[in-house]
Amino acid sequence: MTPPLLVPDTAGTLAPSSPAAGSGANLDIVVGLFVLLLAAKVGEEVFRRLRQPGVIGELAGGLLVGPYALGLVVPGETATILSEIGVVILLFAVGLEIKTDELLQVGRPALVTAVLGVVFPIAAGAAYALVVGEPPATAAFVGLALAATSIGITSRVLAEMGVLDRRFGRIIVGAAVIDDVLALILIGIVSGVAEGDLGVATVGLVVGALGFVALGFAIARRARGLRREVFTWPLFTDTPLVLAFLLMLGLAILAASIGLAAIIGAFVAGLIVAETEAQDEVEHEIKPLASIFTPFFFAVTGAQLDLAALADPKLAVAALVLAALGIAAKVLAGIIGARGTGSWSALAVGVGMAPRGEVGIVVVTLGLSLGLLTPSLFSAVLVAVVLTTVVAPILLSLVIPRAAAEAAAAGDGAAGPAVAAG
Amino acid sequence: MTPPLLVPDTAGTLAPSSPAAGSGANLDIVVGLFVLLLAAKVGEEVFRRLRQPGVIGELAGGLLVGPYALGLVVPGETATILSEIGVVILLFAVGLEIKTDELLQVGRPALVTAVLGVVFPIAAGAAYALVVGEPPATAAFVGLALAATSIGITSRVLAEMGVLDRRFGRIIVGAAVIDDVLALILIGIVSGVAEGDLGVATVGLVVGALGFVALGFAIARRARGLRREVFTWPLFTDTPLVLAFLLMLGLAILAASIGLAAIIGAFVAGLIVAETEAQDEVEHEIKPLASIFTPFFFAVTGAQLDLAALADPKLAVAALVLAALGIAAKVLAGIIGARGTGSWSALAVGVGMAPRGEVGIVVVTLGLSLGLLTPSLFSAVLVAVVLTTVVAPILLSLVIPRAAAEAAAAGDGAAGPAVAAG
Repeated sequence: MTPPLLVPDTAGTLAPSSPAAGSGANLDIVVGLFVLLLAAKVGEEVFRRLRQPGVIGELAGGLLVGPYALGLVVPGETATILSEIGVVILLFAVGLEIKTDELLQVGRPALVTAVLGVVFPIAAGAAYALVVGEPPATAAFVGLALAATSIGITSRVLAEMGVLDRRFGRIIVGAAVIDDVLALILIGIVSGVAEGDLGVATVGLVVGALGFVALGFAIARRARGLRREVFTWPLFTDTPLVLAFLLMLGLAILAASIGLAAIIGAFVAGLIVAETEAQDEVEHEIKPLASIFTPFFFAVTGAQLDLAALADPKLAVAALVLAALGIAAKVLAGIIGARGTGSWSALAVGVGMAPRGEVGIVVVTLGLSLGLLTPSLFSAVLVAVVLTTVVAPILLSLVIPRAAAEAAAAGDGAAGPAVAAG
Repeated sequence: MTPPLLVPDTAGTLAPSSPAAGSGANLDIVVGLFVLLLAAKVGEEVFRRLRQPGVIGELAGGLLVGPYALGLVVPGETATILSEIGVVILLFAVGLEIKTDELLQVGRPALVTAVLGVVFPIAAGAAYALVVGEPPATAAFVGLALAATSIGITSRVLAEMGVLDRRFGRIIVGAAVIDDVLALILIGIVSGVAEGDLGVATVGLVVGALGFVALGFAIARRARGLRREVFTWPLFTDTPLVLAFLLMLGLAILAASIGLAAIIGAFVAGLIVAETEAQDEVEHEIKPLASIFTPFFFAVTGAQLDLAALADPKLAVAALVLAALGIAAKVLAGIIGARGTGSWSALAVGVGMAPRGEVGIVVVTLGLSLGLLTPSLFSAVLVAVVLTTVVAPILLSLVIPRAAAEAAAAGDGAAGPAVAAG
């Protein structure tokens, strides 16, 4: 008997491995991607014409075609991976626009905002859970789920409004990174306690997380003025993009594998490239990739929101209370942490820290798998997490113009992006 | 009981929907993509340093890390979809560099090459199958599997060597499109016969395939000089890329859904955009996307080659004979069809038509599912198809420099940038 060329499993995937005739399964997946991308862009167009942030339109487009509305698309493996690569590219692009010097300048307000932005939501979420009669461990986890910021949405709104290089923009980005590290450490400790194993692994997590960010920052400092040829020496490329992309993806994977959010790794990669002579070119070349990949992140996020769940009054009340507490806690943290930058800017920092996004979703799911959250509490916190993510850009669109005007009046970025960056 | 926010199935995919802590499954997929991209690029670098076509290095890189060698990566759904989008982008980029006028100029040699390039391989493959004692229907299908050209590999080699705009380059591209339409029609007829249903569906297929290509071509003719604003009117974009990308993906899906190869749709989309004023800009912006997506196509193709299968002498002989027949038949078709362009150019056309790629793989798989191919014959034809795909770039790298020199001597593209590469 002739050995088959391909193991059965692979042979099964070979048929659909081409988009030509007979590959229905893969065609369906590509059609799903097309619909998601189109919905995101149509949604963005509609919202822009209504003078609203385009990112809300992308979320709405995903929600509309997703499983909880029209049901045209149920995001599967590929859409999810594209959305992850999309937010990784987004944070890489954010890092690309920031110099480490600029981050150090906002180190103090960012640190205070981050610490308070973890403490306040934990306190608020835990207090709510204790009031409705949950045990302390569960209460701690509800708080934790509200602690971690996901700055994907915020950084997109900041970029869309052209204020990423304002002081309050940099405070948000810096605080979000610190916040993510703090939340990771706390999640590790709580998980360790829940699993009765608070020891070497937890210490390793703390050391790994702090070490990764510190080392990345140190490398970025050393990368200053690195020549373009560092990225273009291979014969296979005449632009720095491919090596920069591999660095981005590699650091995102490294961050995720030590338990940090992948976007932290991508942001650090952006910080590193930002200091080199390849910065301009990479920034220019990453844009086409961002314009195709990042809509998947917002459309897939929007597709996860089940507004119908809010029809259950008990769930709706719990979710709305938790979302309100979560947003208020972050806003308070921002107002206190960034108070030196002017009141609208401080408010923008607080609102900018509000979206919990995919980081919050992961924490909630972890709580369910650890048995710390009941299914109904899981649903309530999950809706609250998604609400913070969807509401934040709406609030930001109200606050940012005033914060930008305030910053301009104070001489920060008054004469356009070039000056603002300095 | 509170309704869960998410249906269980979706909740199951939510946990890994973020690359943050606890999403092991998705992290593994992203790691697999990283390894494939890295292997393709390292392979390309090694082969370029050895003065060989980089695309062979990408194939070799995929083979090396794939399931039949080191086994670091087994390309799954996402890698396969990325590889399909990769070859779609590649053919879109090829279409972008070609004007319909230039295709019409090579209409006659392209048509003759395509027709002979379908007739000869069918005759050769069928003759071999009849000689080894297969029934006529099976013999016809073996021939068919060798008929369809996949120009993904060839167009990459042409682009790498800077000869895509030479006359022989355009003949290859034009012939490959005609060839694909012819092969599709024949496959439809044979499948119809095998299923005892040769009627309206088959006619629909023929009309659909011819209609799609003719209509696409007509639209491209009408698109001449179309203003850039046609692609940049939406508020969400200030470059033509996003709409051009949606057009590319939409036509690829449309082509695939009527049974043509998706790459034909992408190529037609490229032809259309090539006639507009947005051509320059789209060509510039599609490059970063191509540099990230297309390596997946070559790496995934390489990962499908099981060289160990050639250890079976009977299979090895059958595969090698079929591959040799398949290449010889296409070379002969090219030599006759393009004989007016000079002998090296005609040889380049023939060799350029040799790779069967994913189109051949689909036909082979279809033959197995229709019961027209036995498992051992399936393996032999499949190895032959993959061999034509892997060997062709090696042959092309030997023939193209001479064809380019010949073309330059005849005044074809003598003043273009391609001379330096040739």
